[in-house]
Amino acid sequence: MTTKKELLHEGKAKKVFLTDNPDLVIQEFKDDATAFNNKKKGSIRNKGIVNNAISCKLFTYLQENGVQTHLVEKLSDREMLCKKLSIIMVEVVTRNVAAGSLVRRYGFEEGTVLQEPIIELYLKDDDLDDPLMNDSHALALNLATQEEIATLKAEAAKINQLLRKFFADRKLTLVDFKLEFGRHNGAILLGDEISPDTCRFWDSETGEKMDKDRFRFDLGDVEAAYTEVEHRVLDL
Amino acid sequence: MTTKKELLHEGKAKKVFLTDNPDLVIQEFKDDATAFNNKKKGSIRNKGIVNNAISCKLFTYLQENGVQTHLVEKLSDREMLCKKLSIIMVEVVTRNVAAGSLVRRYGFEEGTVLQEPIIELYLKDDDLDDPLMNDSHALALNLATQEEIATLKAEAAKINQLLRKFFADRKLTLVDFKLEFGRHNGAILLGDEISPDTCRFWDSETGEKMDKDRFRFDLGDVEAAYTEVEHRVLDL
Repeated sequence: MTTKKELLHEGKAKKVFLTDNPDLVIQEFKDDATAFNNKKKGSIRNKGIVNNAISCKLFTYLQENGVQTHLVEKLSDREMLCKKLSIIMVEVVTRNVAAGSLVRRYGFEEGTVLQEPIIELYLKDDDLDDPLMNDSHALALNLATQEEIATLKAEAAKINQLLRKFFADRKLTLVDFKLEFGRHNGAILLGDEISPDTCRFWDSETGEKMDKDRFRFDLGDVEAAYTEVEHRVLDL
Repeated sequence: MTTKKELLHEGKAKKVFLTDNPDLVIQEFKDDATAFNNKKKGSIRNKGIVNNAISCKLFTYLQENGVQTHLVEKLSDREMLCKKLSIIMVEVVTRNVAAGSLVRRYGFEEGTVLQEPIIELYLKDDDLDDPLMNDSHALALNLATQEEIATLKAEAAKINQLLRKFFADRKLTLVDFKLEFGRHNGAILLGDEISPDTCRFWDSETGEKMDKDRFRFDLGDVEAAYTEVEHRVLDL
């Protein structure tokens, strides 16, 4: 039995607590919702419970398929026991279909299916609005070694293949998603969460948006969309 | 003797004319100066003459050192005879010292010397404000093949080494610069210009800015800085 100790870090959607085991932390999912780098704030009822359930299921699936993640076990509705990571300050975004900043920045038409996935690196820095960067920026900023950057991209590509299939089987198109990684005892593990907060999901048949875009753009039925994703992910 | 024919293209700083030889164009340098994607406009007296002289000298130096460029010969004060390129819509920026958008975007301190050069790709598209991109964006936008992108970066790195030395010998620090490339008979050639419009130069001893930043930020003595760079480049 791992005992929850002091708060290590509070982010926009989660709190991370130390435990009596220096190798482990507890990640607690909140209902707080933010968008546009905190310019829009709100909350989505039961989001923490839903995102914890979805993330635990997806991390378990990825682990079963050879991806190393920080998940140890689901502790409670809102709590995930995790290996403690030294977070790499790079957000890795993988895109299968054009949406969001890909449309705004480069003029892709929303919904364009990409022939090959686009993988993007962003500097994880709210003060700088998480700017897009390339490998040479990440190196110059001492965020990771060249080898680690190659690992992040290779893991993202592998996870994308696994998740696309997982979601396609559940009639959801995985449009794009953000991953975070960290170092733990010499290995690079997938960290953070995978949920409708960090992915875009579109219903494969209707094209309906089933993710945080419903909150971002006030499309309504936010809780219902999150719950529907949970039901499909957990095969309820 | 090549005869100048109709205008093919007018850019912010140059006009390009067809000639009676379908393989050749004439690039004519204007005095018009623009900054911040055309939001600031003006002119710099004799800039066209100065930039043509500097570019011809630098392209000749690069060619003597194994870089393929579009330069055929200097025709007149403002005119450069060039091989006709099918322009690759990617701007390749190489940085040795932090300045400009590197400071604004990632929080580098201006003047920080980078351990390794940073090479950036930008989509050449004024309507989209020339957004930064990575290799996978360039591929998805069908701007170039993976092999061509590798060539662009390798050429930029080689040109950087040559130009750093060239300018260091003339007491100028090559802070950063933008290159454009094009296809010509199956080869990729360096195109466009290399001048104080497309590079940042700082005097190696005083640190004084000797480039378009004097125009961008109203630092005064714009013409004098361009002329001083011309004198040093041409060993006058």
